[in-house]
Amino acid sequence: MAKVVAVVSGGMDSATLLYHMLDAGHQCWAISVDYGQRHVKELVYARQLCDGVNVPHQVADLSAINPIFGNNSLSGRQIDVPEGHYAEESMKQTVVPNRNMILLSVAIAWAASNQCAAVAYGAHSGDHAIYPDCRPEFADAMDTAARLCDWNPIELWRPFVQMDKGEIAKRGVKLGVPYEKTWTCYKGLEKHCGKCGACVERKEAFALNDLIDPTDYSD
Amino acid sequence: MAKVVAVVSGGMDSATLLYHMLDAGHQCWAISVDYGQRHVKELVYARQLCDGVNVPHQVADLSAINPIFGNNSLSGRQIDVPEGHYAEESMKQTVVPNRNMILLSVAIAWAASNQCAAVAYGAHSGDHAIYPDCRPEFADAMDTAARLCDWNPIELWRPFVQMDKGEIAKRGVKLGVPYEKTWTCYKGLEKHCGKCGACVERKEAFALNDLIDPTDYSD
Repeated sequence: MAKVVAVVSGGMDSATLLYHMLDAGHQCWAISVDYGQRHVKELVYARQLCDGVNVPHQVADLSAINPIFGNNSLSGRQIDVPEGHYAEESMKQTVVPNRNMILLSVAIAWAASNQCAAVAYGAHSGDHAIYPDCRPEFADAMDTAARLCDWNPIELWRPFVQMDKGEIAKRGVKLGVPYEKTWTCYKGLEKHCGKCGACVERKEAFALNDLIDPTDYSD
Repeated sequence: MAKVVAVVSGGMDSATLLYHMLDAGHQCWAISVDYGQRHVKELVYARQLCDGVNVPHQVADLSAINPIFGNNSLSGRQIDVPEGHYAEESMKQTVVPNRNMILLSVAIAWAASNQCAAVAYGAHSGDHAIYPDCRPEFADAMDTAARLCDWNPIELWRPFVQMDKGEIAKRGVKLGVPYEKTWTCYKGLEKHCGKCGACVERKEAFALNDLIDPTDYSD
């Protein structure tokens, strides 16, 4: 049993991460980051999820630095969210520069302030090549930095790094994760659009694994 | 000549860094971070310095996440700033958990958004052992992460890493750095207190190197 900060965005992977960490007996704190993302409503889902399992939830408000991320369709509003599969060239518009380093650094600071042993996040094997900060070697470097940033070494845990999104969903169903209370869609409208890269992947994670998809898509 | 983001706090080292980078012919952008520090007035000095050399200056406003840093005398207000030399035990109260990773991650994001080749900051050999995130091995890990966070590798430059604060001051005097327009004191009052760890070091940097100290101390 360890004291752990879990990075919880409100999506499927991080919801499963939270349940997985609690199932393993860890004492969890959850943190979400508001970087002015278009789908900021994911934070409401993150809060609900944490409330449901009695985990303290902190929103780190970085919305004031939104302009430093420049032009992209996720943190900005000038470029539309592309539709289709992540493999497509247009998906590069969804890259938020250095987002993962920023959100991990804030989570690690909170872990250091609370003498936690680790920060856990939902990196997985299906994270796409268009996102440079999803590369395992990037995460390895961050792990090394996290162990040195404080006198108490903080480890960076990626329990799903060998699993793809479908395997995570299967694990989550076993754990009773309420996927109907998670948010994935990049567009952040009333319902999941079903067409953006994130929605396409969400659909696949359920469909390819014979799992019931509880999502109410608008398409 | 490279496009470089310089982390400029408004203190002596980062002011010298800015002049040093410009002297080397680099095209500079400067970034400062507002993390709700007690001596937030340093940001006014940072802006003045940048204006003086026509360098664009960005303040990353992270003041909303101030509470995650917990109790310390720099980002919080409940513990007084300790007086005396950095070597003293009481100086541990000035450690802001994971501050350097956070400020570097934001600077690196800005560099990535603007296709800069590097982020430069004023780490030096006199950085004290009480600050875990001033260890060279921490900075090395961050350099590795910065080179991987984007498709264009971003380098972490520490041009003063082999110099102490006095040597930096000597270099700065040669470069014409207006040290009277820099701010060091942790207390952030009207004048430099002359008694906190940061002021003690500032005084030493001038005095031990037979340099004129232009600072108006209150003690």
